[in-house]
Amino acid sequence: MLYFIGLGLGDAKDITVRGLELVKQCDRVYLEHYTSILTCGKEELEKFYQRDIILADREMVEQNAEEIIANAETQEVAFLVVGDPFGATTHADLVLRAKEKGIPHKVVHNASIMNAIACTGLQLYNFGETVSIPFWTDNWKPDSFYGKILKNRECGYHTLCLLDIKVKEQSEENLIKGKKIYEPPRFMTTAQAAEQLMHIVENNEKVEGGIQLRADSIVVCVARVGADDQKIVTCTLKQATQEDLGGPLHSMVIPGELHYLEKDAIDMWSNKS
Amino acid sequence: MLYFIGLGLGDAKDITVRGLELVKQCDRVYLEHYTSILTCGKEELEKFYQRDIILADREMVEQNAEEIIANAETQEVAFLVVGDPFGATTHADLVLRAKEKGIPHKVVHNASIMNAIACTGLQLYNFGETVSIPFWTDNWKPDSFYGKILKNRECGYHTLCLLDIKVKEQSEENLIKGKKIYEPPRFMTTAQAAEQLMHIVENNEKVEGGIQLRADSIVVCVARVGADDQKIVTCTLKQATQEDLGGPLHSMVIPGELHYLEKDAIDMWSNKS
Repeated sequence: MLYFIGLGLGDAKDITVRGLELVKQCDRVYLEHYTSILTCGKEELEKFYQRDIILADREMVEQNAEEIIANAETQEVAFLVVGDPFGATTHADLVLRAKEKGIPHKVVHNASIMNAIACTGLQLYNFGETVSIPFWTDNWKPDSFYGKILKNRECGYHTLCLLDIKVKEQSEENLIKGKKIYEPPRFMTTAQAAEQLMHIVENNEKVEGGIQLRADSIVVCVARVGADDQKIVTCTLKQATQEDLGGPLHSMVIPGELHYLEKDAIDMWSNKS
Repeated sequence: MLYFIGLGLGDAKDITVRGLELVKQCDRVYLEHYTSILTCGKEELEKFYQRDIILADREMVEQNAEEIIANAETQEVAFLVVGDPFGATTHADLVLRAKEKGIPHKVVHNASIMNAIACTGLQLYNFGETVSIPFWTDNWKPDSFYGKILKNRECGYHTLCLLDIKVKEQSEENLIKGKKIYEPPRFMTTAQAAEQLMHIVENNEKVEGGIQLRADSIVVCVARVGADDQKIVTCTLKQATQEDLGGPLHSMVIPGELHYLEKDAIDMWSNKS
């Protein structure tokens, strides 16, 4: 049996009671560790679970999936994912492979930013397509997410912007040289995302239609959703470039049309409470 | 302190470890009990939590919210919600009231159908606005959800259809007479939802534009997501009227444009596995 177990938003105790029971009884436990991060470390998790965990990076999941599902016909294997197992990314490929081998699987769901973002007071119903904002480099400034934000705004929908995470990435130089040396993890802040959006707003005249973003458009910045030190700040896009929300993970919402209850709700966060 | 605690998808053990700790330590525990349902009963929950729970129906939450937050300045009060506290519905109003009284609140997030639906293999990224399909009566056949489905399809988005739940509803007769006699709970099945959609597809010629649904359009029906006896069936809309997925809760997805990985994934469920 292959169990996909969501760990929720980051703290060790965010796992469900059922999930914890399964982790304790499984023969092998993998932790997917490249699409999101835990606010606690692997060691803290191992202590809490009272067992060893194998870190599964992108290479292992995408290229050595066989290793993960090996013997899962007879053994119990847990694949832990921060958030919901099928939340912000998909592990449907792993399900397909298991299914082809006749290995049954079960899913233990949990919260992910995709539903927890409703803590802002914005209704999940009214969100359109979710976008990802990637780190820009000097030579690479993709902005296709901006078109999607405008498309959502045109329909009146809010846009959840997931901000880039770089875990175990190689520098261009090391990549070219084939050196498996990895950069320290990086997490985009809402201030960095706002900077990039401001750059588009100020320079991009080619995007037509939709309801354009402006420097004074309202955005909702969130950090460490669900944690004790969670932060939510409602401010203008320009102000957001100056807001320091502290440690990772950060996300940002660009509201569409606001119901008056939604308006009241996000106003609660405008005084940085 | 007012704690909003998500219970996840329905089993007692779907609560998070942190949520369970809080439930055990709170002075009063309310269970919101009208927007979704538990697959387990109140008694089972009380046994598992080893404490009493107060059922909070719509009347209490909407009209007697003061009772729930009473003394929460000094006491610890838990407000339990099936799914995520801010998932398919909003309790932002309760947050606002607490905030006005200077009562702090914390949220313990959990899975809800809004993110768990990704277990179908359809990417959450690609979902548009969520719709609710209400029970039709002889005289009342609202179909505004259909326009939203078409709008999503036009954009290539999938549509999650939440199906009606009638908990503690009065019959028209009892409502008029002012009798507080309540009908037994009812939960719309995917077959009933498909029936209503087929009725629109066959009769509704007034809706223009969008990519119309047809009898042979593919839909994905789900039941009891996250439970051991979860069911997912991919079939045509017409076939869906004949599919019996068993007990509640049911939901349905109307796919938009399918990425080939999404296509492979939903095909897995076409043999009723």
